[in-house]
Amino acid sequence: MSHFDTLITNGLIITAADRYHADIGIKDGRIVALGQGLSGADEVIDAAGLWVMPGGVDAHCHLDQPLGDGAVMADDFETGTRSAACGGTTTVIPFAAQQKGQGLRAAVEDYHRRSDGKASIDYAFHMIVTDPTETVLKEELPALIQEGYSSFKIYLTYDDLKLNDREVLEVLAMARREGGMVMIHAENADCIAYLTELLESQGKTAPRYHGEAHSAIAEREATHRAISLAELIDVPVLIVHVSGPEAIEQIRWAQGRGLRVYGETCPQYLMLTAADLDQEGFEGAKCVCSPPPRDPKAQEAVWQALENGVFQVFSSDHAPFRYDDPQGKKLHGEHADFHHIPNGIPGLETRLPILFSEGVLKERIDATRFVALTATNPAKIYGLYPRKGTIAIGADADLTLWDPEARTTVRNADLHHAVDYTPYEGLELTGRPVLTLCRGGVVSRDGEPTVAPGHGHFLKCDKPQPARPRGAAKGF
Amino acid sequence: MSHFDTLITNGLIITAADRYHADIGIKDGRIVALGQGLSGADEVIDAAGLWVMPGGVDAHCHLDQPLGDGAVMADDFETGTRSAACGGTTTVIPFAAQQKGQGLRAAVEDYHRRSDGKASIDYAFHMIVTDPTETVLKEELPALIQEGYSSFKIYLTYDDLKLNDREVLEVLAMARREGGMVMIHAENADCIAYLTELLESQGKTAPRYHGEAHSAIAEREATHRAISLAELIDVPVLIVHVSGPEAIEQIRWAQGRGLRVYGETCPQYLMLTAADLDQEGFEGAKCVCSPPPRDPKAQEAVWQALENGVFQVFSSDHAPFRYDDPQGKKLHGEHADFHHIPNGIPGLETRLPILFSEGVLKERIDATRFVALTATNPAKIYGLYPRKGTIAIGADADLTLWDPEARTTVRNADLHHAVDYTPYEGLELTGRPVLTLCRGGVVSRDGEPTVAPGHGHFLKCDKPQPARPRGAAKGF
Amino acid sequence: MSHFDTLITNGLIITAADRYHADIGIKDGRIVALGQGLSGADEVIDAAGLWVMPGGVDAHCHLDQPLGDGAVMADDFETGTRSAACGGTTTVIPFAAQQKGQGLRAAVEDYHRRSDGKASIDYAFHMIVTDPTETVLKEELPALIQEGYSSFKIYLTYDDLKLNDREVLEVLAMARREGGMVMIHAENADCIAYLTELLESQGKTAPRYHGEAHSAIAEREATHRAISLAELIDVPVLIVHVSGPEAIEQIRWAQGRGLRVYGETCPQYLMLTAADLDQEGFEGAKCVCSPPPRDPKAQEAVWQALENGVFQVFSSDHAPFRYDDPQGKKLHGEHADFHHIPNGIPGLETRLPILFSEGVLKERIDATRFVALTATNPAKIYGLYPRKGTIAIGADADLTLWDPEARTTVRNADLHHAVDYTPYEGLELTGRPVLTLCRGGVVSRDGEPTVAPGHGHFLKCDKPQPARPRGAAKGF
Amino acid sequence: MSHFDTLITNGLIITAADRYHADIGIKDGRIVALGQGLSGADEVIDAAGLWVMPGGVDAHCHLDQPLGDGAVMADDFETGTRSAACGGTTTVIPFAAQQKGQGLRAAVEDYHRRSDGKASIDYAFHMIVTDPTETVLKEELPALIQEGYSSFKIYLTYDDLKLNDREVLEVLAMARREGGMVMIHAENADCIAYLTELLESQGKTAPRYHGEAHSAIAEREATHRAISLAELIDVPVLIVHVSGPEAIEQIRWAQGRGLRVYGETCPQYLMLTAADLDQEGFEGAKCVCSPPPRDPKAQEAVWQALENGVFQVFSSDHAPFRYDDPQGKKLHGEHADFHHIPNGIPGLETRLPILFSEGVLKERIDATRFVALTATNPAKIYGLYPRKGTIAIGADADLTLWDPEARTTVRNADLHHAVDYTPYEGLELTGRPVLTLCRGGVVSRDGEPTVAPGHGHFLKCDKPQPARPRGAAKGF
Repeated sequence: MSHFDTLITNGLIITAADRYHADIGIKDGRIVALGQGLSGADEVIDAAGLWVMPGGVDAHCHLDQPLGDGAVMADDFETGTRSAACGGTTTVIPFAAQQKGQGLRAAVEDYHRRSDGKASIDYAFHMIVTDPTETVLKEELPALIQEGYSSFKIYLTYDDLKLNDREVLEVLAMARREGGMVMIHAENADCIAYLTELLESQGKTAPRYHGEAHSAIAEREATHRAISLAELIDVPVLIVHVSGPEAIEQIRWAQGRGLRVYGETCPQYLMLTAADLDQEGFEGAKCVCSPPPRDPKAQEAVWQALENGVFQVFSSDHAPFRYDDPQGKKLHGEHADFHHIPNGIPGLETRLPILFSEGVLKERIDATRFVALTATNPAKIYGLYPRKGTIAIGADADLTLWDPEARTTVRNADLHHAVDYTPYEGLELTGRPVLTLCRGGVVSRDGEPTVAPGHGHFLKCDKPQPARPRGAAKGF
Repeated sequence: MSHFDTLITNGLIITAADRYHADIGIKDGRIVALGQGLSGADEVIDAAGLWVMPGGVDAHCHLDQPLGDGAVMADDFETGTRSAACGGTTTVIPFAAQQKGQGLRAAVEDYHRRSDGKASIDYAFHMIVTDPTETVLKEELPALIQEGYSSFKIYLTYDDLKLNDREVLEVLAMARREGGMVMIHAENADCIAYLTELLESQGKTAPRYHGEAHSAIAEREATHRAISLAELIDVPVLIVHVSGPEAIEQIRWAQGRGLRVYGETCPQYLMLTAADLDQEGFEGAKCVCSPPPRDPKAQEAVWQALENGVFQVFSSDHAPFRYDDPQGKKLHGEHADFHHIPNGIPGLETRLPILFSEGVLKERIDATRFVALTATNPAKIYGLYPRKGTIAIGADADLTLWDPEARTTVRNADLHHAVDYTPYEGLELTGRPVLTLCRGGVVSRDGEPTVAPGHGHFLKCDKPQPARPRGAAKGF
Repeated sequence: MSHFDTLITNGLIITAADRYHADIGIKDGRIVALGQGLSGADEVIDAAGLWVMPGGVDAHCHLDQPLGDGAVMADDFETGTRSAACGGTTTVIPFAAQQKGQGLRAAVEDYHRRSDGKASIDYAFHMIVTDPTETVLKEELPALIQEGYSSFKIYLTYDDLKLNDREVLEVLAMARREGGMVMIHAENADCIAYLTELLESQGKTAPRYHGEAHSAIAEREATHRAISLAELIDVPVLIVHVSGPEAIEQIRWAQGRGLRVYGETCPQYLMLTAADLDQEGFEGAKCVCSPPPRDPKAQEAVWQALENGVFQVFSSDHAPFRYDDPQGKKLHGEHADFHHIPNGIPGLETRLPILFSEGVLKERIDATRFVALTATNPAKIYGLYPRKGTIAIGADADLTLWDPEARTTVRNADLHHAVDYTPYEGLELTGRPVLTLCRGGVVSRDGEPTVAPGHGHFLKCDKPQPARPRGAAKGF
Repeated sequence: MSHFDTLITNGLIITAADRYHADIGIKDGRIVALGQGLSGADEVIDAAGLWVMPGGVDAHCHLDQPLGDGAVMADDFETGTRSAACGGTTTVIPFAAQQKGQGLRAAVEDYHRRSDGKASIDYAFHMIVTDPTETVLKEELPALIQEGYSSFKIYLTYDDLKLNDREVLEVLAMARREGGMVMIHAENADCIAYLTELLESQGKTAPRYHGEAHSAIAEREATHRAISLAELIDVPVLIVHVSGPEAIEQIRWAQGRGLRVYGETCPQYLMLTAADLDQEGFEGAKCVCSPPPRDPKAQEAVWQALENGVFQVFSSDHAPFRYDDPQGKKLHGEHADFHHIPNGIPGLETRLPILFSEGVLKERIDATRFVALTATNPAKIYGLYPRKGTIAIGADADLTLWDPEARTTVRNADLHHAVDYTPYEGLELTGRPVLTLCRGGVVSRDGEPTVAPGHGHFLKCDKPQPARPRGAAKGF
């Protein structure tokens, strides 16, 4: 075997299925050898005592996404990917969002301009489809899917984003024809609007009422509807950021009936509750996101669904708004009605450490399942596998070395995003990524960035596996 | 890297999570290298165009098991493991069965005598506990678990095998204390006895009535009971050879509630139905096994449960009795009442080809899930992982090379067991194992054995992971 | 006790709970005495050998309802109530439908003009709300509910009728405030439109494709949605004309969670299937109704839900269109696309005989449950009880005397509606109503009308019981 | 109409279906007239402002039942029926229990001796089958069923009572052949024994541990088993004294699948919890019964199952043991292990007032459902209808007049059983029975007995409706 660029020796390698000790030989950014006693490299990294896992794939995050209302996302590709890299993530898939009245290609091109040369780690794009015109469905999307933009998100809520059921059906039918993967934000817009107005009419405008307006029933209803529309078209779908038992029940019911319905959840549904929205003053605004964190029973249900396979993907849904900022959470001031508060929570950098500490080390999930949820499954579902998401010959050398015993306390001061808070301030964790490589290059070390913007490349996504008649939630 | 004993080049490696092209370097019976362009070996096997999978682990089969009623199993360790090897399997776990009134250690010692020097492939022992005396529970089993016999099967039916609920609880409590894995044959003995006598009183004694006597309700009841007893003790259990939707519903219900209940099914529940018990003359006896094959709707339910993760293990339940033999199916003659027919179906050699052809190639399950079900999961559940069940550095070089395009027709004449029939005679399959290695040694080639008895070693099983409070069906 | 106007002697009285022999004394149109050996009446009717049941309450039928598309309902209040009377029904509740852009009061007034002096039996009005303006919700409906119009139907499908989710929420909230009962036609409009266009684009326009366009998934989705919206508002709702297991599963799930969700089904879902839509030429148009009849498995599920209490109400959904008529089924000719065929099936006169023969006499449901489903429950749910729907002191003397042994064959020639067909032509039934009284007056005898138009009175409905927090499906 | 013995005027009559004002004419102990303005009676009782309901049928109580262990039931037929009468009950069905080794007829004859001439109200017998010999199954039971003893209880737990699954099947098959109704005490004996020994080995012997030993899992398991055995035989069964959501889930699942599985619960599962077993000293012994009261969540589930129809019957399971008595709760002293404490709670007199106050007046259940649960359904299920359980012409004049506004506090000093405590001491209730008639005779007034022993008659029970193939929980 030829000389390696880098050797990582003596680590405990963990994949979505396996756990074994071996050395890893890297050449030209790819894993070219796994073995015992490998030698001959420009650089040797001793991973003794460390766990070597695939670099994280964060398949749901928002970076530098243009918004219509005056709010501005705090993170662009530079700060966002830097932060992700410091948290052990090596691939992000943010969203190129169509504006109503515009085409999708314009959005994609704009998003390339925003990302070019800025990223520390690799990235692909999901699209957000808000205006599924005939041109979009018959021309743009089929072409873009071929060109490597094979997944897209649609919304059942938010006035500027939501599709009606007919539009959803048309998008799903296109996905079936062309082989795209559809992600669905499942909340019932009318329920939320009704509750919002009701609460406002009662003077209930504090951040905590965001949680009441976004009822779990509204989430469950939209989840059932999304499943039904997908069943009618017979195409896989993925329900994003599931918050509790109501929606989980629907997804598990669908999976039990053999439908290919996938599910995703996020750290906020494990670690936060409605109580975090109910803080002094305007502080609750920091935790305003949709669906909202719910209660300890919901947290327990989310953990269980991570364990027993209802969820295939664990993402951050990083949506970065500064708290003390007139373009951020305080867009409408410190006394804004809850529904004028920009929605979102930062989480790119804390996603993996939280699941590692709370999930793996507390033995709620296996280390192999950690890898599946955070790297392998999203890579497969979104057409990046086998290049991304695993430790195997030929795969990109995207690796995170974890010290399973290191103890840290989450401090926003230590994070690398451009947001001025983290909802997890003060959280004590065990286990941390001590070295992260993307295509063989070290992108972070001991929680600090080590690479210049531009190291990250754009990734074209293959089509996910074609839709099949009534398959089950398979293989993940 | 040092010189290899064997190199397998250019194959498509498939594990329970991954799928990639690489060469495999083997030394001293272990996988020591995975890489691109490996070289330097005594022997090079070109696997271009082939799929390289972990050798199969058949975690449920009966070989040379002493029986009390005059019946004799057709296969001993020599013919059984030879047959398994020719079907792509590299590890079997048959049963050392306690006789009521005897101790377990005697059974284990006897079983070693029966296996020593005879096996072509590696083997471990499950124990069958039929008489859980205080000595057995407090002394023998704890010691045997430490010594590498960490799993055992208990029966809720069969007069000479069955335990009552109290005995089941005691066994489960011991398993929790000591860390063993309990397999349960879940059928309600009294229901079967009642129906058997009822059918006999109506003169219904042909083989087909075996299926009616072993009602799916009796299986469902015992499955619910097994789950409940395990829930009370809070210990994982595995329900073996599940035949249809009734028991599946119970297992999925338990998994959804966070219990660590595992499930196994077998080829007969995918490929046979009650119609196979209802043949001319005594021919139906060939398919008498318990639980019995049911109907096409049950087959569909079993496929779905393989897909959506209810089942973790796919085994043969090989229980070999010759058909035309006074020590086999005709123990009581050609007109025997159905309940005097020795129970069991041969299947060691056909297990993997059937699931490969009908499951993987017909796209009902992924190739990765095939590996999980047939090798990785059983190895993990029964304490043989990471030595067995995967393709990873340090693992035994147990490998099966599949030609995914070869077409074969199942003929008993081509099989290597000592049974005089296969229930799958004439079945046309695509995909076959063309080369199988156990610890680096070729044990079969093109469906023919290539190794002398004694190549196989006895394997000590580690304890499975310790029981945890209310965990879910995890990691598999 | 004073002299009676009428005595019905020796019958077997059956109520929703009881079954006993007694004489019934009637005075001034009301039941004033139940007893043994009653005497002293102007007229004595000997009911020996007959079953005396409450006259039927048909809570879902359409009579003389103005339509926008040129189609004309065949039955007005004269023919419709005459037909109902001949089939054992003594109260009907048809619909006063709001036209979009109009108020509800106008609809109610118009409907009174259409019904005044024409009915043979008593009648109340449901309203149909298609345009829930603020005036409608804040003024008209609260006033009308007080005035005796306490139930109203809303649609989730049909372009000219459907409400969006926000409108549904507003209507439900009004119902909660004011105490009305909301009936919901639950099919997803967008799914049906999508499928309709898809089928048409494939040239599939025959009546049979009506069934494919109205997928059971579209019905299930809308049922789940209706339940969710009602759960959010915490108000009872009734899902009308449920056709099969998919929607039944949702309703039973809701009832099991303690929600007050009621269900209704109709004869067509017991007696017809998709095959009835698939007849030679245009004949299938006769059975075009929504939701459509489905398959034998769905029929079985509907029977089971009648038995085990998922359904509280059994109605006809009589929607009368002549077949061979340019204002009826052939509105758009004999080759019309399925979706241009007026929707509906006649059934006022056959509703009770079918359920009596197929349900009671075939022992699928008890006679007491027959009474509950066809009379007592609808009277209670829609605020007509205890005046209507039972045999009790003080109740109106609305009685149907059944000969449980009479055999008849359904012939449209023998029916009294103005429709030129019945979908049940040739159906053989056992049991028939031989005498029907409404407020003590005989309205039909031996299947023939015996009363002049105008005998029937308009009934004001009380409010149903007030909505309570999270009650269960109670008392019915 | 002839002269009445008694007239009850102006009351609000409530049956299982209806609610109306009428006078009731009674002659020769039967209801012979219902009407407005009835007159002509020896005695007129003015029920203005009162609710007139059918007298209660307590279908599950233990009186003067011989026990093998030295314990003696505090109530015989004299005190027991007197107490029942004062609580509004007019029929009881206690148990004639077979001793193992004896025949059933002996038990029945003995029980007649114990009851002859002692009862204040009417009574029938259930049998308890503990030893289903061939003589019992083939001769005694078929004959006794014909003679009016048509229901019997079997146990899955208690060493001296329990049947094994085979015996249960034989009993169920006999019930199907002969038309009897089988009641099942569903707890898993082995689970309870295991837990009991485990708790004892840890020194946990206080009364509170009774609740831990009788795990809800043991109840759920036995319930599923009972359902399965009944499904195999295809015969209705009734699961008695269901304590919480685990068993309820099984029963509802069975009912949803169309099985005729009935359910019963008792006041203790609504009003007590495990906390009542955990009192100072030995006081918890007062609430030791099986299954044990559980927790507030279980109470809520039991309420919901009363509302939504899972339960058909509400009984007392009165099992009277004095607390401060060496033949009662202190049979083995004040420090007895929990499992030596006689099982049972008194409740004959408080059953109806508790459900009336907590259920009807708190609007958890309708008054009609109260009647169904406490009188009509048990009368129907056990073959006493239409003689008992309703207010209808020809029925026995068993009536309870309730003052719905009277307020009382439960005091054992005010009760009329021979037990020295009530678990409901101090409970404040609204609504009380102010007059109770059995066959027209006043048996209690204002909570005090008014009739001499011997007024009550023995009742022969008809067969319940014959078992039908796969019927649903029907008509109740």
